[in-house]
Amino acid sequence: MGRWEPNAQERLGKAALELFTERGYEQTTVAEIAERAGLTERTFFRHYADKREVLFAGTVHFRENFLGTVLSAPASLTPLQVVLAAAQAAGAALEEFRGRDFALARRRIIVANPELRERELIKLADIAVGMAEGLRARGVDEPDASMAAELGMAAFRVAFERWLTDAQERTLPELIEESLASVAAVLG
Amino acid sequence: MGRWEPNAQERLGKAALELFTERGYEQTTVAEIAERAGLTERTFFRHYADKREVLFAGTVHFRENFLGTVLSAPASLTPLQVVLAAAQAAGAALEEFRGRDFALARRRIIVANPELRERELIKLADIAVGMAEGLRARGVDEPDASMAAELGMAAFRVAFERWLTDAQERTLPELIEESLASVAAVLG
Repeated sequence: MGRWEPNAQERLGKAALELFTERGYEQTTVAEIAERAGLTERTFFRHYADKREVLFAGTVHFRENFLGTVLSAPASLTPLQVVLAAAQAAGAALEEFRGRDFALARRRIIVANPELRERELIKLADIAVGMAEGLRARGVDEPDASMAAELGMAAFRVAFERWLTDAQERTLPELIEESLASVAAVLG
Repeated sequence: MGRWEPNAQERLGKAALELFTERGYEQTTVAEIAERAGLTERTFFRHYADKREVLFAGTVHFRENFLGTVLSAPASLTPLQVVLAAAQAAGAALEEFRGRDFALARRRIIVANPELRERELIKLADIAVGMAEGLRARGVDEPDASMAAELGMAAFRVAFERWLTDAQERTLPELIEESLASVAAVLG
Protein backbone atom coordinates (compact mmCIF):
# COMPACT_ATOMS: atom_id res chain seq x y z
CA MET A 1 0.00 0.00 0.00
CA GLY A 2 1.15 3.53 -0.75
CA ARG A 3 1.26 6.37 1.70
CA TRP A 4 -1.90 7.48 3.38
CA GLU A 5 -3.78 10.21 1.55
CA PRO A 6 -6.17 12.24 3.68
CA ASN A 7 -9.78 12.06 2.37
CA ALA A 8 -8.58 10.42 -0.85
CA GLN A 9 -11.94 8.80 -1.57
CA GLU A 10 -13.86 12.03 -1.14
CA ARG A 11 -11.31 14.08 -3.11
CA LEU A 12 -11.49 11.57 -5.97
CA GLY A 13 -15.28 11.66 -5.86
CA LYS A 14 -15.31 15.44 -6.01
CA ALA A 15 -12.74 15.55 -8.84
CA ALA A 16 -14.67 12.93 -10.83
CA LEU A 17 -17.94 14.81 -10.53
CA GLU A 18 -16.32 18.05 -11.62
CA LEU A 19 -14.81 16.40 -14.68
CA PHE A 20 -17.97 14.45 -15.57
CA THR A 21 -19.87 17.73 -15.41
CA GLU A 22 -17.31 19.75 -17.40
CA ARG A 23 -16.38 17.21 -20.10
CA GLY A 24 -19.03 14.53 -19.92
CA TYR A 25 -18.87 11.12 -18.28
CA GLU A 26 -17.77 9.21 -21.39
CA GLN A 27 -14.92 11.61 -22.16
CA THR A 28 -13.38 11.52 -18.68
CA THR A 29 -10.56 9.08 -17.88
CA VAL A 30 -9.41 7.71 -14.54
CA ALA A 31 -6.00 9.32 -15.14
CA GLU A 32 -7.66 12.73 -15.41
CA ILE A 33 -9.69 12.17 -12.26
CA ALA A 34 -6.58 11.21 -10.28
CA GLU A 35 -4.67 14.19 -11.64
CA ARG A 36 -7.46 16.65 -10.75
CA ALA A 37 -7.53 15.22 -7.22
CA GLY A 38 -3.73 15.50 -6.95
CA LEU A 39 -3.45 11.73 -6.50
CA THR A 40 -2.18 8.76 -8.51
CA GLU A 41 -4.20 6.33 -10.60
CA ARG A 42 -3.03 3.64 -8.19
CA THR A 43 -4.68 5.51 -5.34
CA PHE A 44 -7.85 5.80 -7.44
CA PHE A 45 -8.03 2.04 -7.92
CA ARG A 46 -7.49 1.50 -4.21
CA HIS A 47 -10.84 3.26 -3.66
CA TYR A 48 -12.92 2.55 -6.76
CA ALA A 49 -13.08 -0.36 -9.24
CA ASP A 50 -13.65 2.05 -12.15
CA LYS A 51 -15.00 5.52 -12.87
CA ARG A 52 -18.61 4.32 -12.77
CA GLU A 53 -18.11 3.20 -9.18
CA VAL A 54 -17.51 6.80 -8.15
CA LEU A 55 -21.19 7.44 -8.89
CA PHE A 56 -22.47 4.25 -7.26
CA ALA A 57 -20.12 4.00 -4.26
CA GLY A 58 -22.94 4.53 -1.75
CA THR A 59 -25.25 1.90 -3.30
CA VAL A 60 -24.62 -0.98 -0.91
CA HIS A 61 -25.02 1.26 2.11
CA PHE A 62 -28.16 2.84 0.60
CA ARG A 63 -29.72 -0.57 0.02
CA GLU A 64 -28.84 -1.68 3.56
CA ASN A 65 -30.59 1.37 4.99
CA PHE A 66 -33.76 0.50 3.12
CA LEU A 67 -33.81 -3.26 3.68
CA GLY A 68 -32.29 -3.27 7.15
CA THR A 69 -35.02 -0.92 8.34
CA VAL A 70 -37.76 -3.19 6.92
CA LEU A 71 -36.26 -6.22 8.65
CA SER A 72 -35.69 -4.55 12.01
CA ALA A 73 -38.92 -2.53 12.22
CA PRO A 74 -41.09 -3.24 15.30
CA ALA A 75 -43.86 -5.77 14.63
CA SER A 76 -46.45 -3.19 15.69
CA LEU A 77 -45.81 -0.98 12.62
CA THR A 78 -48.18 -1.12 9.63
CA PRO A 79 -46.68 -1.93 6.19
CA LEU A 80 -46.90 1.75 5.28
CA GLN A 81 -45.14 2.84 8.46
CA VAL A 82 -42.42 0.29 7.72
CA VAL A 83 -41.73 1.54 4.19
CA LEU A 84 -41.92 5.16 5.36
CA ALA A 85 -39.30 4.45 8.04
CA ALA A 86 -37.14 2.60 5.49
CA ALA A 87 -37.31 5.38 2.89
CA GLN A 88 -36.60 8.01 5.55
CA ALA A 89 -33.60 6.10 6.92
CA ALA A 90 -32.17 5.79 3.41
CA GLY A 91 -32.99 9.44 2.70
CA ALA A 92 -31.31 10.70 5.89
CA ALA A 93 -28.17 8.66 5.15
CA LEU A 94 -28.10 9.88 1.55
CA GLU A 95 -28.44 13.47 2.72
CA GLU A 96 -25.49 13.06 5.07
CA PHE A 97 -23.37 11.15 2.56
CA ARG A 98 -22.11 14.06 0.47
CA GLY A 99 -24.89 16.58 0.57
CA ARG A 100 -27.27 18.03 -1.96
CA ASP A 101 -24.77 19.62 -4.36
CA PHE A 102 -23.07 16.26 -4.87
CA ALA A 103 -26.45 14.55 -5.33
CA LEU A 104 -27.56 17.18 -7.83
CA ALA A 105 -24.37 16.98 -9.92
CA ARG A 106 -24.52 13.18 -9.79
CA ARG A 107 -28.16 13.24 -10.88
CA ARG A 108 -27.41 15.43 -13.91
CA ILE A 109 -24.63 13.09 -15.04
CA ILE A 110 -26.80 10.00 -14.62
CA VAL A 111 -29.80 11.40 -16.48
CA ALA A 112 -27.57 12.30 -19.45
CA ASN A 113 -26.23 8.75 -19.85
CA PRO A 114 -28.60 5.84 -20.64
CA GLU A 115 -26.26 3.20 -19.20
CA LEU A 116 -26.00 5.04 -15.88
CA ARG A 117 -29.70 5.81 -15.78
CA GLU A 118 -30.48 2.16 -16.34
CA ARG A 119 -28.20 1.11 -13.51
CA GLU A 120 -29.87 3.63 -11.20
CA LEU A 121 -33.36 2.36 -12.13
CA ILE A 122 -32.36 -1.29 -11.61
CA LYS A 123 -30.91 -0.41 -8.21
CA LEU A 124 -34.18 1.16 -7.07
CA ALA A 125 -36.34 -1.60 -8.60
CA ASP A 126 -34.27 -4.25 -6.82
CA ILE A 127 -34.66 -2.46 -3.50
CA ALA A 128 -38.46 -2.35 -3.99
CA VAL A 129 -38.44 -6.12 -4.66
CA GLY A 130 -36.33 -6.62 -1.51
CA MET A 131 -38.71 -4.51 0.59
CA ALA A 132 -41.70 -6.53 -0.66
CA GLU A 133 -39.88 -9.72 0.37
CA GLY A 134 -39.19 -8.23 3.79
CA LEU A 135 -42.86 -7.31 4.20
CA ARG A 136 -44.01 -10.80 3.19
CA ALA A 137 -41.62 -12.18 5.82
CA ARG A 138 -43.51 -9.97 8.31
CA GLY A 139 -46.76 -11.68 7.28
CA VAL A 140 -48.05 -9.06 4.82
CA ASP A 141 -50.02 -10.69 1.95
CA GLU A 142 -49.85 -9.90 -1.75
CA PRO A 143 -50.58 -7.54 -3.42
CA ASP A 144 -50.33 -5.41 -0.25
CA ALA A 145 -46.63 -6.20 0.31
CA SER A 146 -45.61 -5.28 -3.25
CA MET A 147 -47.83 -2.21 -3.36
CA ALA A 148 -46.54 -0.91 -0.01
CA ALA A 149 -42.95 -1.45 -1.18
CA GLU A 150 -43.65 0.30 -4.51
CA LEU A 151 -45.35 3.10 -2.64
CA GLY A 152 -42.35 3.59 -0.36
CA MET A 153 -39.99 3.64 -3.32
CA ALA A 154 -42.25 6.02 -5.26
CA ALA A 155 -42.34 8.38 -2.26
CA PHE A 156 -38.55 8.23 -2.11
CA ARG A 157 -38.11 8.94 -5.84
CA VAL A 158 -40.61 11.79 -5.95
CA ALA A 159 -39.21 13.34 -2.74
CA PHE A 160 -35.64 12.99 -4.01
CA GLU A 161 -36.43 14.90 -7.22
CA ARG A 162 -38.05 17.68 -5.19
CA TRP A 163 -35.26 17.76 -2.61
CA LEU A 164 -32.63 18.39 -5.30
CA THR A 165 -34.19 21.74 -6.20
CA ASP A 166 -36.30 22.56 -3.15
CA ALA A 167 -36.15 26.32 -2.49
CA GLN A 168 -37.30 25.81 1.10
CA GLU A 169 -34.43 23.40 1.76
CA ARG A 170 -36.61 20.89 3.54
CA THR A 171 -34.91 17.65 4.51
CA LEU A 172 -35.30 14.53 2.42
CA PRO A 173 -37.09 12.64 5.23
CA GLU A 174 -39.57 15.53 5.52
CA LEU A 175 -40.25 15.46 1.78
CA ILE A 176 -40.64 11.66 1.82
CA GLU A 177 -43.29 11.96 4.51
CA GLU A 178 -45.04 14.66 2.48
CA SER A 179 -44.99 12.50 -0.68
CA LEU A 180 -46.52 9.55 1.14
CA ALA A 181 -49.10 11.81 2.76
CA SER A 182 -50.06 13.05 -0.70
CA VAL A 183 -51.12 9.50 -1.59
CA ALA A 184 -53.91 9.83 0.95
CA ALA A 185 -54.93 13.09 -0.76
CA VAL A 186 -54.82 11.44 -4.17
CA LEU A 187 -56.95 8.56 -2.89
CA GLY A 188 -59.49 10.82 -1.22
CA MET B 1 -41.16 -5.20 -51.90
CA GLY B 2 -41.26 -9.00 -51.95
CA ARG B 3 -44.35 -11.15 -52.05
CA TRP B 4 -46.91 -10.83 -49.30
CA GLU B 5 -46.40 -13.19 -46.39
CA PRO B 6 -49.49 -13.85 -44.28
CA ASN B 7 -48.99 -12.92 -40.61
CA ALA B 8 -45.26 -12.48 -41.16
CA GLN B 9 -44.81 -10.15 -38.21
CA GLU B 10 -46.55 -12.47 -35.80
CA ARG B 11 -44.79 -15.58 -37.15
CA LEU B 12 -41.43 -13.85 -36.76
CA GLY B 13 -42.33 -12.78 -33.23
CA LYS B 14 -43.31 -16.31 -32.28
CA ALA B 15 -40.17 -17.82 -33.85
CA ALA B 16 -37.95 -15.26 -32.12
CA LEU B 17 -39.46 -15.96 -28.72
CA GLU B 18 -39.05 -19.71 -29.17
CA LEU B 19 -35.40 -19.31 -30.11
CA PHE B 20 -34.64 -16.76 -27.36
CA THR B 21 -36.18 -19.21 -24.88
CA GLU B 22 -34.38 -22.29 -26.22
CA ARG B 23 -30.93 -20.84 -26.93
CA GLY B 24 -30.85 -17.52 -25.13
CA TYR B 25 -31.33 -14.04 -26.53
CA GLU B 26 -27.64 -13.30 -27.11
CA GLN B 27 -27.05 -16.56 -29.01
CA THR B 28 -29.95 -16.14 -31.44
CA THR B 29 -29.39 -14.52 -34.85
CA VAL B 30 -31.86 -12.83 -37.17
CA ALA B 31 -31.06 -15.49 -39.81
CA GLU B 32 -32.16 -18.21 -37.41
CA ILE B 33 -35.37 -16.37 -36.52
CA ALA B 34 -36.28 -15.96 -40.20
CA GLU B 35 -35.50 -19.61 -40.91
CA ARG B 36 -37.63 -20.84 -38.00
CA ALA B 37 -40.52 -18.70 -39.24
CA GLY B 38 -40.06 -20.02 -42.79
CA LEU B 39 -39.32 -16.51 -44.05
CA THR B 40 -36.31 -14.61 -45.36
CA GLU B 41 -34.05 -12.20 -43.47
CA ARG B 42 -35.26 -9.53 -45.84
CA THR B 43 -38.81 -10.11 -44.68
CA PHE B 44 -37.60 -9.93 -41.07
CA PHE B 45 -36.08 -6.49 -41.64
CA ARG B 46 -39.27 -5.31 -43.29
CA HIS B 47 -40.99 -5.82 -39.93
CA TYR B 48 -38.31 -5.24 -37.27
CA ALA B 49 -35.18 -3.06 -37.10
CA ASP B 50 -33.29 -5.77 -35.18
CA LYS B 51 -33.91 -8.75 -32.93
CA ARG B 52 -34.41 -6.54 -29.88
CA GLU B 53 -37.32 -4.82 -31.60
CA VAL B 54 -39.23 -8.12 -31.62
CA LEU B 55 -39.48 -7.79 -27.83
CA PHE B 56 -40.33 -4.07 -27.82
CA ALA B 57 -42.57 -3.87 -30.90
CA GLY B 58 -45.64 -2.96 -28.86
CA THR B 59 -43.91 -0.20 -26.87
CA VAL B 60 -45.16 2.85 -28.77
CA HIS B 61 -48.72 1.58 -28.74
CA PHE B 62 -48.44 0.69 -25.03
CA ARG B 63 -47.22 4.19 -24.20
CA GLU B 64 -50.00 5.77 -26.25
CA ASN B 65 -52.60 3.78 -24.34
CA PHE B 66 -51.26 5.10 -21.05
CA LEU B 67 -50.69 8.72 -22.02
CA GLY B 68 -53.61 9.08 -24.42
CA THR B 69 -55.98 7.98 -21.67
CA VAL B 70 -54.55 10.56 -19.24
CA LEU B 71 -54.98 13.34 -21.81
CA SER B 72 -58.49 12.37 -22.90
CA ALA B 73 -59.95 11.49 -19.48
CA PRO B 74 -63.07 13.48 -18.49
CA ALA B 75 -62.28 16.49 -16.30
CA SER B 76 -64.56 15.10 -13.57
CA LEU B 77 -62.21 12.18 -12.81
CA THR B 78 -59.87 12.34 -9.80
CA PRO B 79 -56.11 11.87 -10.42
CA LEU B 80 -56.39 8.33 -9.10
CA GLN B 81 -59.31 7.51 -11.41
CA VAL B 82 -57.30 8.90 -14.32
CA VAL B 83 -54.23 6.74 -13.69
CA LEU B 84 -56.42 3.71 -13.00
CA ALA B 85 -58.17 4.20 -16.36
CA ALA B 86 -54.80 4.70 -18.08
CA ALA B 87 -53.24 1.59 -16.57
CA GLN B 88 -56.34 -0.46 -17.36
CA ALA B 89 -56.42 0.74 -20.99
CA ALA B 90 -52.77 -0.21 -21.42
CA GLY B 91 -53.35 -3.51 -19.62
CA ALA B 92 -56.35 -4.45 -21.78
CA ALA B 93 -54.40 -3.66 -24.96
CA LEU B 94 -51.39 -5.63 -23.75
CA GLU B 95 -53.61 -8.60 -22.93
CA GLU B 96 -55.08 -8.55 -26.43
CA PHE B 97 -51.73 -7.98 -28.14
CA ARG B 98 -50.37 -11.52 -28.08
CA GLY B 99 -51.79 -13.02 -24.93
CA ARG B 100 -50.34 -14.23 -21.67
CA ASP B 101 -48.05 -16.99 -22.97
CA PHE B 102 -46.24 -14.50 -25.18
CA ALA B 103 -46.00 -12.00 -22.30
CA LEU B 104 -44.67 -14.69 -19.95
CA ALA B 105 -42.02 -15.92 -22.39
CA ARG B 106 -41.04 -12.32 -23.16
CA ARG B 107 -40.79 -11.55 -19.44
CA ARG B 108 -38.45 -14.50 -18.80
CA ILE B 109 -36.14 -13.40 -21.62
CA ILE B 110 -36.07 -9.80 -20.41
CA VAL B 111 -35.38 -10.64 -16.77
CA ALA B 112 -32.40 -12.80 -17.82
CA ASN B 113 -30.70 -10.00 -19.75
CA PRO B 114 -29.60 -6.78 -17.99
CA GLU B 115 -29.68 -4.69 -21.18
CA LEU B 116 -33.26 -5.73 -21.93
CA ARG B 117 -34.35 -5.33 -18.33
CA GLU B 118 -32.92 -1.83 -18.28
CA ARG B 119 -34.78 -0.89 -21.43
CA GLU B 120 -38.01 -2.21 -19.95
CA LEU B 121 -37.50 -0.22 -16.73
CA ILE B 122 -36.72 2.99 -18.63
CA LYS B 123 -39.84 2.52 -20.73
CA LEU B 124 -42.05 2.30 -17.64
CA ALA B 125 -40.27 5.14 -15.82
CA ASP B 126 -40.71 7.41 -18.85
CA ILE B 127 -44.41 6.61 -19.02
CA ALA B 128 -44.77 7.52 -15.32
CA VAL B 129 -43.04 10.85 -16.01
CA GLY B 130 -45.39 11.42 -18.96
CA MET B 131 -48.47 10.64 -16.85
CA ALA B 132 -47.33 13.11 -14.17
CA GLU B 133 -46.97 15.78 -16.89
CA GLY B 134 -50.45 14.96 -18.15
CA LEU B 135 -51.88 15.29 -14.64
CA ARG B 136 -50.15 18.64 -14.09
CA ALA B 137 -51.70 19.80 -17.37
CA ARG B 138 -55.07 18.87 -15.79
CA GLY B 139 -54.28 21.18 -12.88
CA VAL B 140 -53.04 18.60 -10.37
CA ASP B 141 -50.30 20.02 -8.10
CA GLU B 142 -47.04 18.40 -7.05
CA PRO B 143 -46.32 16.07 -5.37
CA ASP B 144 -49.84 14.74 -6.00
CA ALA B 145 -49.36 14.49 -9.78
CA SER B 146 -46.11 12.53 -9.52
CA MET B 147 -47.37 10.30 -6.71
CA ALA B 148 -50.60 9.50 -8.57
CA ALA B 149 -48.60 8.66 -11.71
CA GLU B 150 -46.17 6.50 -9.73
CA LEU B 151 -49.09 4.81 -8.02
CA GLY B 152 -50.73 3.99 -11.36
CA MET B 153 -47.48 2.58 -12.72
CA ALA B 154 -46.86 0.60 -9.52
CA ALA B 155 -50.36 -0.87 -9.75
CA PHE B 156 -49.67 -1.82 -13.35
CA ARG B 157 -46.32 -3.48 -12.56
CA VAL B 158 -47.57 -5.41 -9.54
CA ALA B 159 -50.73 -6.52 -11.40
CA PHE B 160 -48.69 -7.53 -14.45
CA GLU B 161 -46.43 -9.82 -12.37
CA ARG B 162 -49.48 -11.44 -10.81
CA TRP B 163 -51.32 -11.75 -14.11
CA LEU B 164 -48.46 -13.73 -15.66
CA THR B 165 -48.92 -16.57 -13.19
CA ASP B 166 -52.45 -16.03 -11.89
CA ALA B 167 -54.14 -19.41 -11.35
CA GLN B 168 -57.58 -17.78 -11.39
CA GLU B 169 -56.88 -16.25 -14.81
CA ARG B 170 -58.25 -12.86 -13.85
CA THR B 171 -57.85 -10.13 -16.45
CA LEU B 172 -55.07 -7.60 -16.21
CA PRO B 173 -57.52 -4.68 -15.78
CA GLU B 174 -59.13 -6.57 -12.85
CA LEU B 175 -55.77 -7.14 -11.21
CA ILE B 176 -54.78 -3.49 -11.73
CA GLU B 177 -57.93 -2.39 -9.94
CA GLU B 178 -57.19 -4.84 -7.12
CA SER B 179 -53.62 -3.56 -6.78
CA LEU B 180 -54.75 0.04 -6.53
CA ALA B 181 -57.48 -0.94 -4.05
CA SER B 182 -54.82 -2.59 -1.89
CA VAL B 183 -53.16 0.81 -1.47
CA ALA B 184 -56.21 1.89 0.49
CA ALA B 185 -55.80 -1.21 2.66
CA VAL B 186 -52.10 -0.49 3.14
CA LEU B 187 -52.89 3.09 4.11
CA GLY B 188 -55.66 2.08 6.50
